[in-house]
Amino acid sequence: MEVIDISLELSNETPTYRGRKEKKPSITVVRTLEEGANEMRLNLETHTGTHVDAPLHMLHNATSIDQIPLTHFMGFAYLAEIRNVPVITEKELLPFEPFLSRETFLLIKTDNSFQDLNRDDFVYLDRSAAQFLSERNPKGVGIDALGIERNQPDHATHQTLLSRGILIFEGLYLKEVNPGWYYFMAFPLKVKAGDGAPARAVLMRI
Amino acid sequence: MEVIDISLELSNETPTYRGRKEKKPSITVVRTLEEGANEMRLNLETHTGTHVDAPLHMLHNATSIDQIPLTHFMGFAYLAEIRNVPVITEKELLPFEPFLSRETFLLIKTDNSFQDLNRDDFVYLDRSAAQFLSERNPKGVGIDALGIERNQPDHATHQTLLSRGILIFEGLYLKEVNPGWYYFMAFPLKVKAGDGAPARAVLMRI
Repeated sequence: MEVIDISLELSNETPTYRGRKEKKPSITVVRTLEEGANEMRLNLETHTGTHVDAPLHMLHNATSIDQIPLTHFMGFAYLAEIRNVPVITEKELLPFEPFLSRETFLLIKTDNSFQDLNRDDFVYLDRSAAQFLSERNPKGVGIDALGIERNQPDHATHQTLLSRGILIFEGLYLKEVNPGWYYFMAFPLKVKAGDGAPARAVLMRI
Repeated sequence: MEVIDISLELSNETPTYRGRKEKKPSITVVRTLEEGANEMRLNLETHTGTHVDAPLHMLHNATSIDQIPLTHFMGFAYLAEIRNVPVITEKELLPFEPFLSRETFLLIKTDNSFQDLNRDDFVYLDRSAAQFLSERNPKGVGIDALGIERNQPDHATHQTLLSRGILIFEGLYLKEVNPGWYYFMAFPLKVKAGDGAPARAVLMRI
């Protein structure tokens, strides 16, 4: 079985949403072999690197990451490649309608995979794209940016998807994978009452 | 498909190896919905809660967690239940010899599953148990304690297992699962040059 890693590496250099310094991970050695064992401390945000957004990230009294059944983080996924557009709208998603279902995920590879993830003007899904997806109601949507939207002050993309229970997977490393069907898994850390959590995301070739 | 969560919850109350306070996670809210979105910061050790030890945890110039292929974190696993002993030696493992192979994991449910995980005198695998396992060479060994050994100043259990490339899964939550065969997955966070990393561990009934 071929298992493909689609997770970002976690280090002090891991890119952050719009390059924000306060969101940088801080990873420090706290003990060494000479003291008995190598051990490190990880200081991360729930939205650092490859991670999952729970409805609680953007909604009041919503489901937290530890309350979501594990089966919601796994399933068949169609990886779509959409290049040379600065923003993904309903129009760009229309060709992928046949691949959308209640039981599957849509993962989107964009120009982000070939650019610095710290950049301010990353490719994102606008409100029309989110509305389109919410009507088809997939299990989840993944993207190769550290956020699924930007410059929408009402967070319409997050709000629309999360209020439908459509999970959002951000920070996917998709540069080296081709479009097509895969089996996808991204189990987040079980953070009590968490608004999201880092995950190790994988694809299996089917 | 039934997917069983065998991960500890991460919170400020998560138990630590021997109850050590300096190993406690610190999870804080850094932003709220009123400020735009709920976000948290996680301050954890590589060995906090449910996690995987890489050879680098105890060996010089050894493999770090990010260098281990994903297929090493998944596969069929036999869950053995060994109760009413304070330490697991070769003798306690002998009955499980038929279940051991190069391609499978051994997960061990002990009295730890029914006790405070902060306790000092948790059930562990001694050097004879590690030697026995290293000769059968499973993919990995998991236990329901925050460490696989204690009171062995030379860390013989870790040393013996990790030097053979046998991964160690600690902090498994096994209280609610019965002995038998399962499909096991525990993908750790991809911590660059990490000596280990937290993971979400799951079992699937087969």
